[in-house]
Amino acid sequence: MTHTRDSCAARDEADPLRGARDRFSLPPGMIYLDGNSLGVLPRGVSERVAHVVAAEWGEGLISSWNTAGWIDLPARVGARIAPLIGAQGHEVIAADSTSVNLFKLAAAGARLQRPRRAVVTEPGNFPTDLYILQGLEGWLGGEIEVRVVGRDQLMDALDEDVALLVLTQVHYKTGALHDMAALTARAHAVGALALWDLSHSAGALPVDLNGVGADLAVGCGYKFLNGGPGAPAFMFVAGRWQDKIATPLSGWMGHAEPFAFHDQYQPAPGIRRLLTGTPPVLGLSVLEAALSAFADVSMAAVRTKSMALGDLFLDLVEARLPGAGFEIACPRDANARGSQVSLRHPDGYAIIQALIERGVVGDFRSPDILRFGLTPLYVGYADIWDAVDRLCAVMATGLWQESRFHVRAAVT
Amino acid sequence: MTHTRDSCAARDEADPLRGARDRFSLPPGMIYLDGNSLGVLPRGVSERVAHVVAAEWGEGLISSWNTAGWIDLPARVGARIAPLIGAQGHEVIAADSTSVNLFKLAAAGARLQRPRRAVVTEPGNFPTDLYILQGLEGWLGGEIEVRVVGRDQLMDALDEDVALLVLTQVHYKTGALHDMAALTARAHAVGALALWDLSHSAGALPVDLNGVGADLAVGCGYKFLNGGPGAPAFMFVAGRWQDKIATPLSGWMGHAEPFAFHDQYQPAPGIRRLLTGTPPVLGLSVLEAALSAFADVSMAAVRTKSMALGDLFLDLVEARLPGAGFEIACPRDANARGSQVSLRHPDGYAIIQALIERGVVGDFRSPDILRFGLTPLYVGYADIWDAVDRLCAVMATGLWQESRFHVRAAVT
Repeated sequence: MTHTRDSCAARDEADPLRGARDRFSLPPGMIYLDGNSLGVLPRGVSERVAHVVAAEWGEGLISSWNTAGWIDLPARVGARIAPLIGAQGHEVIAADSTSVNLFKLAAAGARLQRPRRAVVTEPGNFPTDLYILQGLEGWLGGEIEVRVVGRDQLMDALDEDVALLVLTQVHYKTGALHDMAALTARAHAVGALALWDLSHSAGALPVDLNGVGADLAVGCGYKFLNGGPGAPAFMFVAGRWQDKIATPLSGWMGHAEPFAFHDQYQPAPGIRRLLTGTPPVLGLSVLEAALSAFADVSMAAVRTKSMALGDLFLDLVEARLPGAGFEIACPRDANARGSQVSLRHPDGYAIIQALIERGVVGDFRSPDILRFGLTPLYVGYADIWDAVDRLCAVMATGLWQESRFHVRAAVT
Repeated sequence: MTHTRDSCAARDEADPLRGARDRFSLPPGMIYLDGNSLGVLPRGVSERVAHVVAAEWGEGLISSWNTAGWIDLPARVGARIAPLIGAQGHEVIAADSTSVNLFKLAAAGARLQRPRRAVVTEPGNFPTDLYILQGLEGWLGGEIEVRVVGRDQLMDALDEDVALLVLTQVHYKTGALHDMAALTARAHAVGALALWDLSHSAGALPVDLNGVGADLAVGCGYKFLNGGPGAPAFMFVAGRWQDKIATPLSGWMGHAEPFAFHDQYQPAPGIRRLLTGTPPVLGLSVLEAALSAFADVSMAAVRTKSMALGDLFLDLVEARLPGAGFEIACPRDANARGSQVSLRHPDGYAIIQALIERGVVGDFRSPDILRFGLTPLYVGYADIWDAVDRLCAVMATGLWQESRFHVRAAVT
């Protein structure tokens, strides 16, 4: 298929998700392909946060724990996320960061499986996932032994020693998508549990946790869910595990009666026991407001468009940038890819910087990956055309070779 | 000394902290004596959060990690808290919740002291402190054994078995103040470390962590620091321990090179290694703005006024409410008291509700404690007079006996 800007614009006209773009506040002129790192600002969030600060906090003060429902925010936000990931409302709760939540659930999952000790994950998993597992291994005595196994050997590595499989569904660099159903089934076949990190999939593609029988999951609030920088993360615990599970981070918000102020910890029924400290009301309120952008959105339609956007991007790179030194670093088959495309180039950092200066925001992941997130609710086909067009211009002019684009920022 | 409303008003006139009240947005007509639970809204916060959302997030998007300094927020906010607690700027960092931070530092402190195992705390400590220690005991194999020791026996309980002393400086119910210097010195004398929870003292009274040689501390952002509901908390690690300490919650933000995305965890130099997940940018920004209310404030002046407010409250209760069934539940000596007064009454819950209806906000702690927080930056002497005056009215009319005041809310 030969693409033109006109054909892309025509596809935008026909796009059933076209109207969703108005639910977001996009900087004029910017093509934002970084929603897999930080989602854009949904409309309504500014108003909500202003209300929470001025009215709920400023005027309601302490009474807002009851009257504004602050105390229910973790469960309420969890229930809003649940349909996006194939979970029941009571199986998801919003709290803390993805890293902290992963610590809670990996510890809990491994303990459920004692005396099994092996926790299987893959090299190149998102670093915090690896670091958290390393922390657990170093601190939980002999309870956990981390086994880092290459992607191709994962199925074979799942044996009767394994307590827990911990994987990120969509790889943060390459966008490669794990077969969650097959891996979960294999884990169960050997008596292991499956813990999925949905940071790069929640809100990006249909996830069916209960459909595949997943046991545990965590995910991020600030990427495809658009909850703002450092938004609270979430946890999923399948109903069958909720009253069996325990967390090392046993804090007062996970107590059966937090306001009875007993000296002895007693876990709350259900998933609320995974809460630890006081809920971050501002962050949870923003995330709740942000999730309104998913109202009446079909995740199947999101997936269809996401795959098409990715194919379009790669088609255009192949057609227009042969010999420019790019290598496709994501699966070429859209079915094997999450909602991003990735290219490899030895000068990837400088190229991304030059591209950002031309209004196309992607990001760079060391050592040589250019990532472009595809967020179908606010990115269209013509945006992809224009993005690749500007990438062509950057390469044609040698713009990226200017030294200023080679100065690394603190966060890349 | 006989107090009158006029004498109270005169003390407000002469109060060197009088001007600080204008730094806060107080609900008209409300006397707010609950800043030990949730501090009021400082002026400037609404503007700051609106800017963070609309400009930094909405327009700057991912670039704001660098250009708006988001990545430095945990250290920057920590450095703003440091002078309030007698620490160097690089010894404090803001992150997560008090509970999560306590988990990190109690685990870290105990590990520094291996093979010692005993962690000493007191019954009736704030519940989350006890629950977190119980979680550590249950999960860190034989590494930790919690010893719960009555307040009067603490000095004797510190022996050569003890790894760590974990106490809250100001008791959340009674307001009783521990002698931080003496207890820390005794801990050190037996080779133990001291970890202080400053949740009810940071911003309420002068704390001198380095002066007393404290090793570790945690504290809350949303009480006397006025950081808003569920604000990020903070950690203090004395300089001498910073490069020796390790956390089980080893996440990517505590890595030496978080954006190199290595597979192996390597702790950052200094206190940054205690970070775990992505920093909660909105909450940290609000807390940073809130801390401006402490600019040029003398904590010694805060303490002087706080003690005087507490004495005034208790004098008035003794003088005007004899025989009303109240018992003073806090130390009568201001030197032994934090920045709150507490009364005991069998119908405390209903009395607090009736008082709230009359515009005086205190709170209730099970089973029978009425708490009144004293926040000298925005509470004056005439406020105390009026608060006790309305308490007298509630008791005189029997208002609190109405059944509606006996219905418990979810959060009390």
